[in-house]
Amino acid sequence: MKRAESKVVVLRLGHREGRDDRITSHVALVARAFGAKEIVIADTPEESVERTIAKVTANWGGAFKAKTGIPWRDFILKWKRKGGEIVHLTMYGQKLQTILPRIRRSRRDKLIVVGASKVPSEVYKLADYNVSITNQPHSEVAALAIFLDRFFKGTELSLQLRKQSNIR
Amino acid sequence: MKRAESKVVVLRLGHREGRDDRITSHVALVARAFGAKEIVIADTPEESVERTIAKVTANWGGAFKAKTGIPWRDFILKWKRKGGEIVHLTMYGQKLQTILPRIRRSRRDKLIVVGASKVPSEVYKLADYNVSITNQPHSEVAALAIFLDRFFKGTELSLQLRKQSNIR
Repeated sequence: MKRAESKVVVLRLGHREGRDDRITSHVALVARAFGAKEIVIADTPEESVERTIAKVTANWGGAFKAKTGIPWRDFILKWKRKGGEIVHLTMYGQKLQTILPRIRRSRRDKLIVVGASKVPSEVYKLADYNVSITNQPHSEVAALAIFLDRFFKGTELSLQLRKQSNIR
Repeated sequence: MKRAESKVVVLRLGHREGRDDRITSHVALVARAFGAKEIVIADTPEESVERTIAKVTANWGGAFKAKTGIPWRDFILKWKRKGGEIVHLTMYGQKLQTILPRIRRSRRDKLIVVGASKVPSEVYKLADYNVSITNQPHSEVAALAIFLDRFFKGTELSLQLRKQSNIR
């Protein structure tokens, strides 16, 4: 099974310093383990998340990176200008099972946007796809995992992340 | 697509009062949204999680319940005595994609065990299946979501949870 060729990056919105550390770390670890290239944590600089991810990547391989403190609107607009698409995961979107084939057909790079609590309504408008994973409240960690698992058709379950250097 | 007939309950181990509230709430909400009947949070009484879940179920439907403060070993042994099986989600298990067909063939009730940090080695021995979701560190929230999504073959994505009473 070949993986979709587009590059996948995750943008985490609404992270609150301190309070959201652990959930955001879970979001970042899921992004890495399920095949995204990078996570961007919007607006709030958060060294603890950057450190957690750098440590996991050093120990477990791959080239995944976490960047924090980047203004979300600028990042989304730049992504779109470069020809990439925006996939916003939200309870109030189109059903994953309906919209996924269309998302997978397009080979453009994908920015997967996951919010913490309330997401500005502008995000819904900027998104090429607003996608709901079940119609129930649950977790952005779970929503991201299910989206990436379906997007990559499960190939990430046997993803091999190689260490970038031979030094342990 | 018919759902597997066995009853699915989630057992959360190693929850630390206060510190793990939010992650455990995400685990519980995922259990509910992805088709489990109940979550049991072992050992630690945690009213905040019980309240969160009671509120979500009142507003969003279904009969899902959270119980907390139940000793884990007793609960597992009782589950096994009643003929149920134990599925322990862990990085150090057999690959989901390899073992899932066998788990789905058995119609026995399933207790899905997810740990927080370190899980006692006894759990690995008591489990009928130790199952890994990728070979990378990520999140028990994601592991549970992926397991239930695959176990129920995606039917939970359109699960309708009905309110138990007409009183709003």
